[in-house]
Amino acid sequence: MTDTSPREFTLNCPVPRESHNTVQMAHGGGGRLMRNLIEEMFLPAFAAGQTGEKILPHDSAVLPLETARLAFTTDTFVVSPLFFPGGDIGKLAVYGTVNDLAMAGAKPLWLSAGFILEEGLPMDTLRRIVASMQAAASEVGATVVTGDTKVVDRGKGDGVFINTSGVGVVPDGVEISPARVAPGDRILVSGDLGRHGIAIMSVREGIEFQGALPSDCGSLSDLVQSLFSAGARDIHCLRDLTRGGLASALNEIAKDRGVGIELDEPSIPVAGPVAGACELLGLDPLYVANEGRLVAFVAPGSANRVLDAMRQHPSAPEAAMIGTVIDRHSGTVELRGALGGGRILDLLSGEQMPRIC
Amino acid sequence: MTDTSPREFTLNCPVPRESHNTVQMAHGGGGRLMRNLIEEMFLPAFAAGQTGEKILPHDSAVLPLETARLAFTTDTFVVSPLFFPGGDIGKLAVYGTVNDLAMAGAKPLWLSAGFILEEGLPMDTLRRIVASMQAAASEVGATVVTGDTKVVDRGKGDGVFINTSGVGVVPDGVEISPARVAPGDRILVSGDLGRHGIAIMSVREGIEFQGALPSDCGSLSDLVQSLFSAGARDIHCLRDLTRGGLASALNEIAKDRGVGIELDEPSIPVAGPVAGACELLGLDPLYVANEGRLVAFVAPGSANRVLDAMRQHPSAPEAAMIGTVIDRHSGTVELRGALGGGRILDLLSGEQMPRIC
Repeated sequence: MTDTSPREFTLNCPVPRESHNTVQMAHGGGGRLMRNLIEEMFLPAFAAGQTGEKILPHDSAVLPLETARLAFTTDTFVVSPLFFPGGDIGKLAVYGTVNDLAMAGAKPLWLSAGFILEEGLPMDTLRRIVASMQAAASEVGATVVTGDTKVVDRGKGDGVFINTSGVGVVPDGVEISPARVAPGDRILVSGDLGRHGIAIMSVREGIEFQGALPSDCGSLSDLVQSLFSAGARDIHCLRDLTRGGLASALNEIAKDRGVGIELDEPSIPVAGPVAGACELLGLDPLYVANEGRLVAFVAPGSANRVLDAMRQHPSAPEAAMIGTVIDRHSGTVELRGALGGGRILDLLSGEQMPRIC
Repeated sequence: MTDTSPREFTLNCPVPRESHNTVQMAHGGGGRLMRNLIEEMFLPAFAAGQTGEKILPHDSAVLPLETARLAFTTDTFVVSPLFFPGGDIGKLAVYGTVNDLAMAGAKPLWLSAGFILEEGLPMDTLRRIVASMQAAASEVGATVVTGDTKVVDRGKGDGVFINTSGVGVVPDGVEISPARVAPGDRILVSGDLGRHGIAIMSVREGIEFQGALPSDCGSLSDLVQSLFSAGARDIHCLRDLTRGGLASALNEIAKDRGVGIELDEPSIPVAGPVAGACELLGLDPLYVANEGRLVAFVAPGSANRVLDAMRQHPSAPEAAMIGTVIDRHSGTVELRGALGGGRILDLLSGEQMPRIC
């Protein structure tokens, strides 16, 4: 084992702060470095053009027209490998953006598709990806209405990168926003965690895990619409659990809203093979990426009704109530074990596994 | 000089048709190969989800809501180098998408920004680019409301790629579409051609041309809005002249609409230094990329009025009337010289210069 004890010379040998001067993989990982980049560079720059209330980072921007509220979002996909158990970059690109719209309560209407192709990419690969995008768009009732194609030289890209942006309409009476999260809210999760990250890992590292482990890559749009009948006004916030997993999503909201979050460890669903793979690889499933799971913040009086509605939907039979928003320990997420012991789930610097979406 | 005469062995040595099996640089070049890719792969796939009239490829999709018409477009920028005389990738990314909205007659409202950063990119480079994007967005009255950041490993990207998507509103009474191009329409161009491509080339190849040659990279949004007062209904179609230049844009429209186009060569404005650089490099300025020029198809009775309006706008003092749509020679663009001789401007396979936007 490496000796990790402090050494005398540490104080005399300052670590270069390169992470602040150049982009690191962790800046794309959904953790602390990415949050810093957004808060210190993007928001101050782009917020200069914005009027009205402070914009909290969220999955979609909600935009008022005179007679309708639109949601607008963008997402770029650089997943490696392009094909993985349960999905591919095309499917991921459509569901990813549709899910971001759904997190604002919006029904997806229109999608754009922007391709960056690497010279030499087999046409058949592109054809499969495009077919997969169209199948996914069809399934969720959205239409790809505009697109763009760029080609970069060999070695300046990696097969194919896809940006999808999306426009949707927010139904009347729906008001989903991190700003509405409040102490007392119950926290629900729509299914078991960590499948997508482990599915990617299994192909990338050539590891075969016991049992089938397809990605959870899928649409959350229909699930969200079905929840509204169970109490639209009482669903305060939705967040899909992508890079950085459950722990990162909850940390963001806790820090943005200045609340605490208490999770009940035994009630958090993780499938056996995912738990096994995580143990083998030294990963924490609460930080592993998902691509078809959401977390919902619901007023306490409606939480059971919304949980029942989730479980009745074909995509969320394993939905669970996993925690509560509290008015103490502002900005922290605490995991309480079966015996009452607790540990803080902090925001990681980056992702445990880069390029999973 | 190389001997280019046919040789005996040519027939016995078939050229591999690799161009059909893998992506070539030319598939991103705005020419015939890109058109094939769009027509043979993207449109058939994505059109399956579309209802109503056949969608002609255009810069923005126009989308009806109950009470407003929205324009929606996407564009990805992979320009190399990131900084060039007269602009940078950030400015280009904002103006490019804003200009695509303007080509549907739409006023830009909201923009998204999706970054693909290569590990190791200096933060200062990114900061300059972001500041440039914000300045450009501010200038055109648009707001960056949503974004996304991905990081790829060193050698799997090239500094920074940016996707911008945009949403705008199309004013009442404006109906800009390639479907409205008709024989008799006069063709106007908003300024001299070829600056952007030559500006990029000069940095990339380290060539110093005589005289200053900044890119024309700029917004067309305000120009378009100012034209509407000169006859909105009579402006049939607008197209910004990016990859593939004037010749490619006109070829697309001639082929889509089954009309002919006749251009008057002496009236097409090309600045002296651009003409000189093109001669030196063996390029045709009519195929060289622009990033702040448009072509307008206008009903004959309004053409002079619209031309005057262009020339009064600060961005288009050199606007010119350069040709006419005819009902013969369907699908072809012909350049008529000062002495009456003509030559066909065909669609190239790709771009003369890759990665100019």
